[in-house]
Amino acid sequence: MTTEQQYNVAVVGATGAVGVKMLETLEQKNFPIKELLLLSSKRSAGKQVEFKGNTYTVHEATPESFEGVDIALFSAGGSVSKKLAPEAVKRGAVVVDNTSAYRMDPEVPLVVPEVNEGDIQQHNGIIANPNCSTIQMVAALKPVQEQFGLTRVIVSTYQAVSGAGNEAVDELRNQAKSFLEGEEMQADLLPVSGEKKHYPIAFNALPQIDVFQENGYTFEEMKMINETKKIMHDEAIQVAATCVRLPFFTSHAESVYVEVNNGGVTAEQLKEAIKRADGIVLEDDPENQVYPTPLEAAGKSDVFVGRIRKDLDNEKGFHLWVVSDNLLKGAAWNSVQIAESLIKNNWLSK
Amino acid sequence: MTTEQQYNVAVVGATGAVGVKMLETLEQKNFPIKELLLLSSKRSAGKQVEFKGNTYTVHEATPESFEGVDIALFSAGGSVSKKLAPEAVKRGAVVVDNTSAYRMDPEVPLVVPEVNEGDIQQHNGIIANPNCSTIQMVAALKPVQEQFGLTRVIVSTYQAVSGAGNEAVDELRNQAKSFLEGEEMQADLLPVSGEKKHYPIAFNALPQIDVFQENGYTFEEMKMINETKKIMHDEAIQVAATCVRLPFFTSHAESVYVEVNNGGVTAEQLKEAIKRADGIVLEDDPENQVYPTPLEAAGKSDVFVGRIRKDLDNEKGFHLWVVSDNLLKGAAWNSVQIAESLIKNNWLSK
Repeated sequence: MTTEQQYNVAVVGATGAVGVKMLETLEQKNFPIKELLLLSSKRSAGKQVEFKGNTYTVHEATPESFEGVDIALFSAGGSVSKKLAPEAVKRGAVVVDNTSAYRMDPEVPLVVPEVNEGDIQQHNGIIANPNCSTIQMVAALKPVQEQFGLTRVIVSTYQAVSGAGNEAVDELRNQAKSFLEGEEMQADLLPVSGEKKHYPIAFNALPQIDVFQENGYTFEEMKMINETKKIMHDEAIQVAATCVRLPFFTSHAESVYVEVNNGGVTAEQLKEAIKRADGIVLEDDPENQVYPTPLEAAGKSDVFVGRIRKDLDNEKGFHLWVVSDNLLKGAAWNSVQIAESLIKNNWLSK
Repeated sequence: MTTEQQYNVAVVGATGAVGVKMLETLEQKNFPIKELLLLSSKRSAGKQVEFKGNTYTVHEATPESFEGVDIALFSAGGSVSKKLAPEAVKRGAVVVDNTSAYRMDPEVPLVVPEVNEGDIQQHNGIIANPNCSTIQMVAALKPVQEQFGLTRVIVSTYQAVSGAGNEAVDELRNQAKSFLEGEEMQADLLPVSGEKKHYPIAFNALPQIDVFQENGYTFEEMKMINETKKIMHDEAIQVAATCVRLPFFTSHAESVYVEVNNGGVTAEQLKEAIKRADGIVLEDDPENQVYPTPLEAAGKSDVFVGRIRKDLDNEKGFHLWVVSDNLLKGAAWNSVQIAESLIKNNWLSK
């Protein structure tokens, strides 16, 4: 950031898995903060959090909390956003919301800056941060769409437990420990907190992320389908998704199959396009066993892409393997990028 | 088995991950064994193995070992099969080979009994057992092909470490232990024994199973592509595959996307077809969170299918989630089924 101006920033959900990464990212990117306000539910209020060497007390988020706030980064669950984001906007803040509350609202831009930064400008006080699994995929698909036309996406995900919060991280750790000690695994949370049934995630795979919809798809799958079309500005792209939770802590991986519009495209051309794209790192050298993995991507802001191959039976089909830290590019970093863009482009005030 | 006759059976690779399951399966299915001969590499010769309460000594496999053997079940690696299967055949045995050595040989039937049992009859002494990831997929696809026509398959796999042998199982266990104790993970084997680079599999995902081919696909992916067409007797089926190793011990899971030939097919019709198929168990009740998982499928012979959904954007597209024990239906049980079919149909002698 080159601006001299500084801003009052509120982080709502400051003690959650994403909130913690939000603060790390704000610090690391040296975001121009005048005053930092850490907010949470009543339950977490009173906790102490470090930021740039100072200790901050977390306060309970109320409508009045947002007086004087310029930018509010929300990641405290959809119901908190539904209730408090309009209150923040009413008091003059611009909200970057990292829940599903407003993503499909036609009045709310849904933004991955590398893909549709310009949409931010249309905001009415709220900009939605897409679902983690969507963000990394559309970032990788953008150069494909731009250069070759994108008609179809079929994705199967490999998603980390941190996407379900800190308690899910603890659950995987505890279950793995129990299993290795020959004890029974205790399953109280995954696949979905609050659901009737829970299954062990350690040394297992659960084909359910978020609750089931009436059409047999999970909400996570529907997010990928609907958000992709909205972000990429093309309702005609066919998107099919299967989302699976797996026993690793950080980074989602995705096996993405795409069909392009143009014939005669080579895997080399696709690699070249991916390589030149913003925010994407091409890691694709089979001969030297170079490809992205969740462990390697953890802690990094970029989206990593490898295993790019042309379908052997279909002239327009290609495979990509897309990996990114679900808490960074999938959440905190993308939100901070949106906030940076608001400032850089003078889009804060309407 | 209703036959009165008994057979001399050799198990080659009796101490390996699959060999052990082969013996368990022969015992459990009460296979009509007259004499049981346990064979292995020189390294494992001399080991003692239990079968039906008796102790057997494992002998080094040599050409002469197969004198008097009726049925030889091979799973000691491709090079052993290449060398010794013809020697066994020369001595009058029928070989069921669980390596990739003969699978794509046009003279050798490649068989999943629920799909193409009749092919066994064409054998010239060797019948090949397909790759584990292929077997469970084609078993699930057979009723789809039969009733609705199958034009296209796009699969992303979630594969257990036991597919890489007992050492890989130990490696996952040791790495997980190290990680939980805050120690560095030691990676000496996966993704592929003998490759230049090794990566941790615990709390990770590795998009490499078997070695890379010149076209950028792994050998595992090429097996799924080529074997599927051969087993299903249709070179025109488009098959695209991405194979991924994951940190669980047993059972492969597969996110399988298919396109059918007929229009107007419903997900309910597909479920009905799957439900009626041999060797398949439909576990598909989203409302009650019923779907197959690797942990639940482990130790069972069947192929479990769930998460059946119609593509929301494509009239002919469907999703399936297919899970099966990679050492049982994916290896040992399928081999024993072939052996049972040889006997039942009088196809042992030509």
